[in-house]
Amino acid sequence: MAYFENIGKVAYEGSQSQNPFAFKFYNADEVVAGKKMSEHLKFSMAYWHTLTAEGNDPFGDTTAIRPWHSYKGMDMAKARVEAGFEFMDKMGLEYFCFHDIDITPEGSTLKEFFANIDTIVDLIETHMKSTGKKLLWNTANMFTNPRFVHGAASTNNADVYAHAAAQIKKGLEVGKRLGGENYVFWGGREGYMSLLNTDMKLEQDNIARMFHMAVDYAKEIGFDAQFLIEPKPKEPTKHQYDFDAATSIAFLQKYNLDKDFKLNLEANHATLAGHTFEHELRVARINGMLGSLDANQGDMLLGWDTDEFPVNVYDSTLTMYEVLKNDGLGKGGINFDAKVRRDSFEADDLFLAHIAGMDTYAKGLKVAAKLIEDGAFDKVIEERYSSFSEGIGADIVAGKTTLASLSEYAMNNENPRPNKSGRQELLQAVLNQYIYG
Amino acid sequence: MAYFENIGKVAYEGSQSQNPFAFKFYNADEVVAGKKMSEHLKFSMAYWHTLTAEGNDPFGDTTAIRPWHSYKGMDMAKARVEAGFEFMDKMGLEYFCFHDIDITPEGSTLKEFFANIDTIVDLIETHMKSTGKKLLWNTANMFTNPRFVHGAASTNNADVYAHAAAQIKKGLEVGKRLGGENYVFWGGREGYMSLLNTDMKLEQDNIARMFHMAVDYAKEIGFDAQFLIEPKPKEPTKHQYDFDAATSIAFLQKYNLDKDFKLNLEANHATLAGHTFEHELRVARINGMLGSLDANQGDMLLGWDTDEFPVNVYDSTLTMYEVLKNDGLGKGGINFDAKVRRDSFEADDLFLAHIAGMDTYAKGLKVAAKLIEDGAFDKVIEERYSSFSEGIGADIVAGKTTLASLSEYAMNNENPRPNKSGRQELLQAVLNQYIYG
Amino acid sequence: MAYFENIGKVAYEGSQSQNPFAFKFYNADEVVAGKKMSEHLKFSMAYWHTLTAEGNDPFGDTTAIRPWHSYKGMDMAKARVEAGFEFMDKMGLEYFCFHDIDITPEGSTLKEFFANIDTIVDLIETHMKSTGKKLLWNTANMFTNPRFVHGAASTNNADVYAHAAAQIKKGLEVGKRLGGENYVFWGGREGYMSLLNTDMKLEQDNIARMFHMAVDYAKEIGFDAQFLIEPKPKEPTKHQYDFDAATSIAFLQKYNLDKDFKLNLEANHATLAGHTFEHELRVARINGMLGSLDANQGDMLLGWDTDEFPVNVYDSTLTMYEVLKNDGLGKGGINFDAKVRRDSFEADDLFLAHIAGMDTYAKGLKVAAKLIEDGAFDKVIEERYSSFSEGIGADIVAGKTTLASLSEYAMNNENPRPNKSGRQELLQAVLNQYIYG
Amino acid sequence: MAYFENIGKVAYEGSQSQNPFAFKFYNADEVVAGKKMSEHLKFSMAYWHTLTAEGNDPFGDTTAIRPWHSYKGMDMAKARVEAGFEFMDKMGLEYFCFHDIDITPEGSTLKEFFANIDTIVDLIETHMKSTGKKLLWNTANMFTNPRFVHGAASTNNADVYAHAAAQIKKGLEVGKRLGGENYVFWGGREGYMSLLNTDMKLEQDNIARMFHMAVDYAKEIGFDAQFLIEPKPKEPTKHQYDFDAATSIAFLQKYNLDKDFKLNLEANHATLAGHTFEHELRVARINGMLGSLDANQGDMLLGWDTDEFPVNVYDSTLTMYEVLKNDGLGKGGINFDAKVRRDSFEADDLFLAHIAGMDTYAKGLKVAAKLIEDGAFDKVIEERYSSFSEGIGADIVAGKTTLASLSEYAMNNENPRPNKSGRQELLQAVLNQYIYG
Repeated sequence: MAYFENIGKVAYEGSQSQNPFAFKFYNADEVVAGKKMSEHLKFSMAYWHTLTAEGNDPFGDTTAIRPWHSYKGMDMAKARVEAGFEFMDKMGLEYFCFHDIDITPEGSTLKEFFANIDTIVDLIETHMKSTGKKLLWNTANMFTNPRFVHGAASTNNADVYAHAAAQIKKGLEVGKRLGGENYVFWGGREGYMSLLNTDMKLEQDNIARMFHMAVDYAKEIGFDAQFLIEPKPKEPTKHQYDFDAATSIAFLQKYNLDKDFKLNLEANHATLAGHTFEHELRVARINGMLGSLDANQGDMLLGWDTDEFPVNVYDSTLTMYEVLKNDGLGKGGINFDAKVRRDSFEADDLFLAHIAGMDTYAKGLKVAAKLIEDGAFDKVIEERYSSFSEGIGADIVAGKTTLASLSEYAMNNENPRPNKSGRQELLQAVLNQYIYG
Repeated sequence: MAYFENIGKVAYEGSQSQNPFAFKFYNADEVVAGKKMSEHLKFSMAYWHTLTAEGNDPFGDTTAIRPWHSYKGMDMAKARVEAGFEFMDKMGLEYFCFHDIDITPEGSTLKEFFANIDTIVDLIETHMKSTGKKLLWNTANMFTNPRFVHGAASTNNADVYAHAAAQIKKGLEVGKRLGGENYVFWGGREGYMSLLNTDMKLEQDNIARMFHMAVDYAKEIGFDAQFLIEPKPKEPTKHQYDFDAATSIAFLQKYNLDKDFKLNLEANHATLAGHTFEHELRVARINGMLGSLDANQGDMLLGWDTDEFPVNVYDSTLTMYEVLKNDGLGKGGINFDAKVRRDSFEADDLFLAHIAGMDTYAKGLKVAAKLIEDGAFDKVIEERYSSFSEGIGADIVAGKTTLASLSEYAMNNENPRPNKSGRQELLQAVLNQYIYG
Repeated sequence: MAYFENIGKVAYEGSQSQNPFAFKFYNADEVVAGKKMSEHLKFSMAYWHTLTAEGNDPFGDTTAIRPWHSYKGMDMAKARVEAGFEFMDKMGLEYFCFHDIDITPEGSTLKEFFANIDTIVDLIETHMKSTGKKLLWNTANMFTNPRFVHGAASTNNADVYAHAAAQIKKGLEVGKRLGGENYVFWGGREGYMSLLNTDMKLEQDNIARMFHMAVDYAKEIGFDAQFLIEPKPKEPTKHQYDFDAATSIAFLQKYNLDKDFKLNLEANHATLAGHTFEHELRVARINGMLGSLDANQGDMLLGWDTDEFPVNVYDSTLTMYEVLKNDGLGKGGINFDAKVRRDSFEADDLFLAHIAGMDTYAKGLKVAAKLIEDGAFDKVIEERYSSFSEGIGADIVAGKTTLASLSEYAMNNENPRPNKSGRQELLQAVLNQYIYG
Repeated sequence: MAYFENIGKVAYEGSQSQNPFAFKFYNADEVVAGKKMSEHLKFSMAYWHTLTAEGNDPFGDTTAIRPWHSYKGMDMAKARVEAGFEFMDKMGLEYFCFHDIDITPEGSTLKEFFANIDTIVDLIETHMKSTGKKLLWNTANMFTNPRFVHGAASTNNADVYAHAAAQIKKGLEVGKRLGGENYVFWGGREGYMSLLNTDMKLEQDNIARMFHMAVDYAKEIGFDAQFLIEPKPKEPTKHQYDFDAATSIAFLQKYNLDKDFKLNLEANHATLAGHTFEHELRVARINGMLGSLDANQGDMLLGWDTDEFPVNVYDSTLTMYEVLKNDGLGKGGINFDAKVRRDSFEADDLFLAHIAGMDTYAKGLKVAAKLIEDGAFDKVIEERYSSFSEGIGADIVAGKTTLASLSEYAMNNENPRPNKSGRQELLQAVLNQYIYG
């Protein structure tokens, strides 16, 4: 049976197509920079936004109209699996991601919860085998249940901490079983609401302890997924410990976890932290920490995580630019952590929104590849820093100078002027020309 | 002669005084938490805001009326020294801080600049000896001169880099000569205007190289000041590399500089980065990185560095709370990196503003000391995390658990609930009661 | 029976009390500026936050523990009425406010909804008579139900518009019956998610039409409450039409509604719009539009409506300063549109939070009254603008000048200088002295 | 002689051109939507950013390298005129805008200032006649000189107010002489630094008085330019009275100035106020207040007015969409209130930046025209609101309904559901397709 009866496989029809249910730019098999688009763009369906979300917001009840609404409980959970694989198939998405509570009701005990998970994972596994779809990553939701009100690994309640550990253990086992390529930690409530009642050091130490236990357990069971932390600066808490890429790196370095983890970076989280997405990607990249992407976009005038589908080609271009410069994402991929607007409540909107996002990334990939192929920015940068390739500059880079030697040099080289304009406006115009020229 | 003729020594007159030129809360010799206020509060005059600034802004010319305006060039530089020591004396400030270009004109060559510095430093040294005033820290200004348009240690021009090195070398020598307790690096233009033309990795590597050279040179000349980085997220650049405390710590860890540096934290920089000041202090404190303070406050509705005098007692209380918990600031102090509003253009306003700031910190110190003495928050926190002091919680903290052992525990301990309200509102009411009860 | 069994009447015990369940500053019968505190501070319980809310957030399920949780449906609705009056009684709150859907389930038809309302309003009325509690205002919730996904008076669906009209009509009737002193319109979804699909002019015209119909109907039934618009800039929509005080005034002026409406201003909405609360109050006051307050506070570093209990005495002082300058709020009052933090989930926290808020306002009232009594700011302002009381300044104010006459004056009066410092830092210090001196 | 010797006339070379000094999209004579591009896009050179600015910022001295730097005083003023007309000629800009102090030194008296103005205006007039260039608008700078530290029309000093009046009078005379099509008021310091010392009502009344005098004087001398207010929310003051479009409209309505003024809207000011530029344009448009544009863009992550050249084609498309829907800007135009980045300090950057901006607007115009021609959004909107074209909806719009009649209708029309998805993601994808498809 089909859940999305009136929609067929979404096909590439080119940039002039008037068909809303066709790709205008994403052409899976088209080769860009030596690889198929689908290999560059390991798009993933976010189980929660596509299958679990219902269109409620803090001021309004659910609006979503979904074809599995006639089912309840475990039946609905199963229907969602069916619908999800149909959706991936029709959209041409090769990957998916989920939290444990996305795929099944929690039940009233951990035992029941894990049994429910097993039931649904059986079904998912069957579908994976028959379709070839893959698990980009899974994770444990440790922020929705009221027990996590004070955090999970950062909770003040050791029993809650143990509960979180049990969920992570199960998550790792599920990941191994389904061949998950990564395993993600988003610390939804790992942070604080008020410093007045918070022991920040104990909380961060405990988080590190949990991560070490997770690393150890993954090794124990032979689960070789890439571990990922997902930075976010705030929301739901006042302050989240994994504020941004740099903060997460500081944490991982301090606790000797930097060899075991990379970062899962999200566009909207970047801007909430006061950064562009490309900044976060660059920081991760030059630190060898670029793991995977949560593709979405925020509204720069709104102060919460709007998780909009990515439709800005400037952003997708600069994102794919960093990804290409990183030689790809390794095990990572591009997960649509994006939700349709509450007023886009029809099931069709799920397709339309993914098309919008995939096309935006496809266009961005092509522009980025061309920029790199032409050296549009690289040549400028190479020339710009050329003074560090010779003479005193080369000595500096080689570590051959001291304050004394540089000072002597400077005293004999009065009034150095900046040697060249930064040419920002020209480079922005070049970017425009590549995008829509 | 006196520059501030009509103003005498500012004295403590108590909270009911109607004298604008008296302290209402700052009583230097009053003992709080076992030490004199003046020992807790090593207040420092910021040379630039007090003596050099002229009240211009991006949309308006200078408004300040200053008693040294009849002088020019080096004469004005000397007059400022005289006026500065008079100001410190009358205000009861024991410390001061300066950038190299605050104290003297740059001249047309480095040689001339350094000669000018020597002349003024002679004069400063004389005044220090006769008055007992001390240098909290000095630094090199490597952002105002056009040569630093693309950065100093992060410049693309090796000659500019060498010039910066020369300034730092001189700065360290001046610091040693004047017995500076700290030496500060604020990377005014160490960051980028556009990622499109920026080699972030080379720039950060070069900054680290400069810092290592500075550490080496200080050791070489026997200058044992505490080195400090001052985080700021943006302005004047689009992005400053020392974004916030955590980012700076990540940098120092990566480049093996974390033993040689601490942080000079500024309130307004904290809020520009999306943090409360107490958050930044806490982060630094639990990482052993709390060095010194730039005391001021921003306007939470304005997006630039307003550097206002600190007049919010909530902030000063939580600031001093962290300082007391840190057992003080060591070599660090409390520098008023704060400027009078452009429309507070009379010389009197310099006094009124410092009084406002010092009183605010004095009140904050007293409230914080009492909160700690009473265990007002400590008792709550101790109780709140008590589950980690025994049983499974103690095992977690002791590193005796694994995911498997915790999972087994959790399976036999269904549905842990959060064990207690966080009581934020009560704690906020307690804070109010301590402040104005 | 009692819902809050272990809590008695909250009494004033003075600023040194250690009893968390006592007022430290709010002393209802104490006379301040010629009136009892309780007359200045017409505090109101917000039905929704106190009785209906359950402690969920966009990332987490309900945490609240409430004594009426053993009931369901209309029984729970009735229990809430009982509990609410008990709460008001114990807290010493004389007023309350509600949306229609706060007090009763909606049922499956409008008819059933209105019947439910009637049932509960009967019960409320009985309690009002026996306790003397009063209705500060009521309103219709036209944003939670999915039918309002595209707005209510700004919907694109005429049937939804009619439905909204029916709710307003019922709301006005309920208000009249319960003697409501005001009637509020908060346009929860009156705005847009995207300009791409929005006819802004039609939407605003339709809102104005609805308001005129409401004004007419109130007159028709003899309901003489003050009508109030509640500005908010965004959330849940991307842009709310009643962005701030000035925007709302522009709307009311344009559509000839400015004689029939005033503003219900909320602190957190002010800061979301980029204003201080005192700014919004001032704008409303000098335009004769200051109607009523939604007392709360936001977190200046968070971009959503946190609706925290007001605990900042700077804010409450400047708020009450504007209220006193307005000769009070007339029919308006001070409604606690504030919710306990999600992790303050115990019923006790409702009391603790209201105590915190009421004490904060009480302290603010006392400080503001003293500031006005002493002319602490008034004298400065009078002196500051004195040049407009005489000579050319008086002529300007009297409308006797022209560009030509002023130009001639100026040509003969070269280089006017600003005549005096604005003395901001001094005034801030004075404010501090009044608050905690 | 030529100031920009090595640069010729910038010509259109098409989207594939590799010549940095050519237009890729702006083709002045190309007809779009029935008019030449140059008629749609009345581009104007901003005298201040192009000719007067020197590349300083709050943390750094001037960096700009300009060919008129060998001159001083009035000679430099004259050289700037020559260079400006050469620049306009080479860039193909038909209009320019200036503040009084942009074109000439102030001198030491008003008399001298006005004489200087007359000298330069003579020169400008000569060039205008010989080149056909036109004055889009002029204005008086009443914020840079220290005398305006407390405001101009909102000053507390009547003498300063008179001085401002004299400058406005002169500005109107200059505007008339040069055939200025508009006259602008940007209230640089019309606002407040602190409410504690501010009489907001008197200040706003005085501003209104000044505007009425200006209207009267313009009529008196027969100057029929369109008067324009330029909203900005903050900077340099903490709060500017002309916060945004709606606030300015409220002010104009209140003081009966709404027939005499329209708005000069700036993109960066819009975003500083928390709005998209298209929002501000829409608000102005549906209120008949859309006058002219200050074209630039801000950095959404920076909180100050960065005045960057507009290079975002999403923004330029939505801007030109509103302009086309407004049937153009009437007397208004598109002034580049944009400055090259401080590190784009070469004179060439002035050309490169204007090319970037003009191309961005040209592309936006073409996309917007096509969107309108195809009814890409219009058809969706028409369909979306169709329920207000018939039946009960038509009655509502016609004013034939009451709360009672609508309530009766609703009672017989249970549970209206939202009739259709808002389709935001689809419309965003359509926009992308039009931009780069």
